Amino acid sequence: MTTAKRDTYTPETLLTVAVRVFNERGYDGTSMEHLSKAAGISKSSIYHHVAGKEELLRRAVSRALDGLFGILEEPGATRGRAIARVEYVTRRTVEVLVGELPYVTLLLRVRGNTNTERWALERRREFDQRVSELLKAAVADGDLRADVDIRLATRLLFGMVNSLVEWYRPQPGGPSEWEQLADTVVQLAFEGMRASR
Amino acid sequence: MTTAKRDTYTPETLLTVAVRVFNERGYDGTSMEHLSKAAGISKSSIYHHVAGKEELLRRAVSRALDGLFGILEEPGATRGRAIARVEYVTRRTVEVLVGELPYVTLLLRVRGNTNTERWALERRREFDQRVSELLKAAVADGDLRADVDIRLATRLLFGMVNSLVEWYRPQPGGPSEWEQLADTVVQLAFEGMRASR
Repeated sequence: MTTAKRDTYTPETLLTVAVRVFNERGYDGTSMEHLSKAAGISKSSIYHHVAGKEELLRRAVSRALDGLFGILEEPGATRGRAIARVEYVTRRTVEVLVGELPYVTLLLRVRGNTNTERWALERRREFDQRVSELLKAAVADGDLRADVDIRLATRLLFGMVNSLVEWYRPQPGGPSEWEQLADTVVQLAFEGMRASR
Repeated sequence: MTTAKRDTYTPETLLTVAVRVFNERGYDGTSMEHLSKAAGISKSSIYHHVAGKEELLRRAVSRALDGLFGILEEPGATRGRAIARVEYVTRRTVEVLVGELPYVTLLLRVRGNTNTERWALERRREFDQRVSELLKAAVADGDLRADVDIRLATRLLFGMVNSLVEWYRPQPGGPSEWEQLADTVVQLAFEGMRASR
């Protein structure tokens, strides 16, 4: 039997619990019952805060998407040479992934069975497209190699960056750790692993 | 009501159906009922072929793991300079991913709730470790840059390669397509995206 505790949740703190459960069980595999048990409050208390689990999903992926799209509006992404902008966006994407890890993890696992999931997939494609255009501009400037298919390169770049959510676990007491991680990602993606000859 | 068809499955063809369902619903979210419906045969007919869904999972991830570990025994992976062996293993990993796409997809989504899943995760770590050692040897030879953390580089390399299962869909009539894909992966991972200066 679940002992319901007094409901002191805000939509924000309830979201933290929901995202953890979604990531553990998958969004499809999570019922309102699971959310109620994990939060320790009744289902009707949850409905007091949100219309249902899809609203929780929408709020969670919005947070991840706002973080990612926010990068594209920053001066580092909008001014200067395309190659510098691409590197800036790559570094900041690593920072957002690390800073919003559970939210971005959920975003990247979305499959597209509900309207919210399809919308999230569409927004992800938009983001990839925007970065793809930056890569194209850097190729046109002669800074990136012209012999690589840009669509493929964008996918591989994000494949590398997004894999963080599968294996990266924040270390206690390492606030600047993401910077070293971002350095390595940028180095590998743009300079490659080979020693200079 | 499901109309059961005559059971003409072999363990091999049944596996094809099971892997498709596991990838669609997740292994945890798949019941024997789901498998029975997808295969169009009764649950007891399935039990005639295998002991249960965990056996199907074990067979499926074994196929992926055998493909991957097989690479490490090939002459290209065991003879010659470490850098050439690393590039060979990377190319062949892309080939195995593309050739055994549903099996490797399942392997990469395994989370570790059953003995079979924990065993699969352990084997994946072993494979990564073997490649990591090759990378170390290539650094010692002076062919790969020494300023990159090898464990991190291995994860990013596999992050890039493994992302294939999320977005790669075989094109009809493109038998040599994987070669172009493998070329791009090797180029990006080892030479980077930057134009030579």
